[in-house]
Amino acid sequence: MEFNFRVEKRDGGSKARTGVLHTPHGEIKTPVFMPVGTQATVKAMTNDQVLHAGAQIILGNTYHLYMRPGHELIREAGGLHQFMNWKKPILTDSGGFQVFSLGDLRKLTEEGAAFQSHLDGSRHMFTPEKVVEIEEALGSDIMMVLDECTPYPADFDYTKHSMERTHRWAKRCKDAQTRGDQALFGIVQGGMYPDLRKRSAEEIAKLDFIGNAIGGLSVGEPKPMMYEMLDVVTDVLPEEKPRYLMGVGTADCLVEGVARGVDMFDCVLQTRIARNGTALVRNGKLVIRNAEYAKDFRPIDETCDCYACKNHTRAYIRHLVKTNEILGAILLSIHNTRFTIRLMEEIHGHIEAGTFGEFRREFMDNFRL
Amino acid sequence: MEFNFRVEKRDGGSKARTGVLHTPHGEIKTPVFMPVGTQATVKAMTNDQVLHAGAQIILGNTYHLYMRPGHELIREAGGLHQFMNWKKPILTDSGGFQVFSLGDLRKLTEEGAAFQSHLDGSRHMFTPEKVVEIEEALGSDIMMVLDECTPYPADFDYTKHSMERTHRWAKRCKDAQTRGDQALFGIVQGGMYPDLRKRSAEEIAKLDFIGNAIGGLSVGEPKPMMYEMLDVVTDVLPEEKPRYLMGVGTADCLVEGVARGVDMFDCVLQTRIARNGTALVRNGKLVIRNAEYAKDFRPIDETCDCYACKNHTRAYIRHLVKTNEILGAILLSIHNTRFTIRLMEEIHGHIEAGTFGEFRREFMDNFRL
Repeated sequence: MEFNFRVEKRDGGSKARTGVLHTPHGEIKTPVFMPVGTQATVKAMTNDQVLHAGAQIILGNTYHLYMRPGHELIREAGGLHQFMNWKKPILTDSGGFQVFSLGDLRKLTEEGAAFQSHLDGSRHMFTPEKVVEIEEALGSDIMMVLDECTPYPADFDYTKHSMERTHRWAKRCKDAQTRGDQALFGIVQGGMYPDLRKRSAEEIAKLDFIGNAIGGLSVGEPKPMMYEMLDVVTDVLPEEKPRYLMGVGTADCLVEGVARGVDMFDCVLQTRIARNGTALVRNGKLVIRNAEYAKDFRPIDETCDCYACKNHTRAYIRHLVKTNEILGAILLSIHNTRFTIRLMEEIHGHIEAGTFGEFRREFMDNFRL
Repeated sequence: MEFNFRVEKRDGGSKARTGVLHTPHGEIKTPVFMPVGTQATVKAMTNDQVLHAGAQIILGNTYHLYMRPGHELIREAGGLHQFMNWKKPILTDSGGFQVFSLGDLRKLTEEGAAFQSHLDGSRHMFTPEKVVEIEEALGSDIMMVLDECTPYPADFDYTKHSMERTHRWAKRCKDAQTRGDQALFGIVQGGMYPDLRKRSAEEIAKLDFIGNAIGGLSVGEPKPMMYEMLDVVTDVLPEEKPRYLMGVGTADCLVEGVARGVDMFDCVLQTRIARNGTALVRNGKLVIRNAEYAKDFRPIDETCDCYACKNHTRAYIRHLVKTNEILGAILLSIHNTRFTIRLMEEIHGHIEAGTFGEFRREFMDNFRL
């Protein structure tokens, strides 16, 4: 078996734990933040820069890769690892989230999601079976099942109906899998209803996936509500399997997610706000494009070990952002990615050292959005 | 004296030569190609990537830096080297070319060039004295005098009048210089009139600059005409001083320029066509965005040692270009810059080995635009 997850150390005062996940492309120490490489590239970064940021695994988006360059082309290239020359593990989503975001361009049935391309209007259909076929062509280490990300707000009946279909689709994905060298992860839904979340976690756990994800959170709900749902779900999901909170990656949510027993996270925020001229720092954000940084000859973060902070000043990066130079997006993407991975490394260290509770209190006291 | 130029080896069959130019920020082996860092960044590349491409010196644009972030801010930062953290030599142009390109927004008088900002319409004046003041604030190793780049075509009287003013401006720049740690280069003009070119080269040579540049070429004239002007000028300019052909950098012009005794070149083409999805190769160009490269799993150039060619395929880079991913521009900028510098290294080697004539013939026979 090429996959194996081992919990290494548990925190005394929370559900936080460290672990090691073995995959065909190497080991991943958890908790882990996974940079997003939507179109076979972590935006504005070379693979070397992603590696230097400390990335252990990256994410690819099935919807985007299916559209361009197409999964058959990637299969011909030898899979996504070879196509983009990324040698460490890759996780692919199911494309469901992107398809459901198409609004009027998509239609859901029991069979799957019919949709029109956002690029050329061509018609396509994502079924659980089709999505597994695409993800097998991509050859990711971890594949996600097709699910419906229930919108927020949604009433109880809609949420229940949607969740039940997500469970049926999860089973169909499992049955459709043909390759033995890829781990399929299930996804818990259930909206903002604790009893549905609990049932979804139980149903997904029963399907005995290699790992379990929590979807449909950070979709507009207040954070306390998200934390409540998380708590319900991680109380049910098996201890001995990795847990992945999808699409969540602000620093406060990483700390609080880990405290609730989450092992894996991904988020586009790091590179997206980089392209808008914003840097992540310990207690929140620096909007580097603001005039106050025009003559600020300090690095973004004195304590950061990234290429941007080791080599450049806020004043220089602000100049690049103001003049729309690509290097501004590059340096801020490098910093924001390294910043987040360094936070995860710090969290890892505190869990190992038994000081996570203290770290969490202090971190959350100083954090502002 | 912090500046010193020594001719090392002369080619037997042409005016080509190798040399070493000492500057306060290090030695430059000539012939040299200088990547352009218009706004204090070689577009889409980190300094590390520019260094790995083999760059010995980069160029900064005075007009752009004067506009944003302003030369006074760069002075406060400790100069352009420190502002952008580039430790090797920098050459700055005079900003004249950019100002003259403003068309209706500028007005030339004996005093200088009055112009309105292309950004906010604010009014400014570049005089020879002002330009030297700005370049001294930037602290480049090599400063260029303010000249008028005579347009093509231009009649004899206009060209002569413009050239004579360029000579007077060159003298004023020399008189305005206050720092001893920057080399000021004169610029030869004279349009497409061999007798004016000859006179300009004589006049500029008389002013005894540390180096001499040839401006006003590659402005739309046929290449044989450019080569003819070059030959006239380099026959006059002193042998013992470096010669810089401004704004010229296609591979054929590099080879032919070196053959006519040019030591230094700069060009924006390398990074500009990179951002349009085009790669330089030995015999011309590859328009990587074309469909023919969709499944081409070879590197851009099998013989190239750049990061893009060592790590990625044409198919992958095409995908990045087609999906507007920044990494496409990054990889092609790295390749095109390295390609050009490698060509200069090769030329250098052939001059040293006495095989430049043969190399030149073979290169030009196989080159197509």
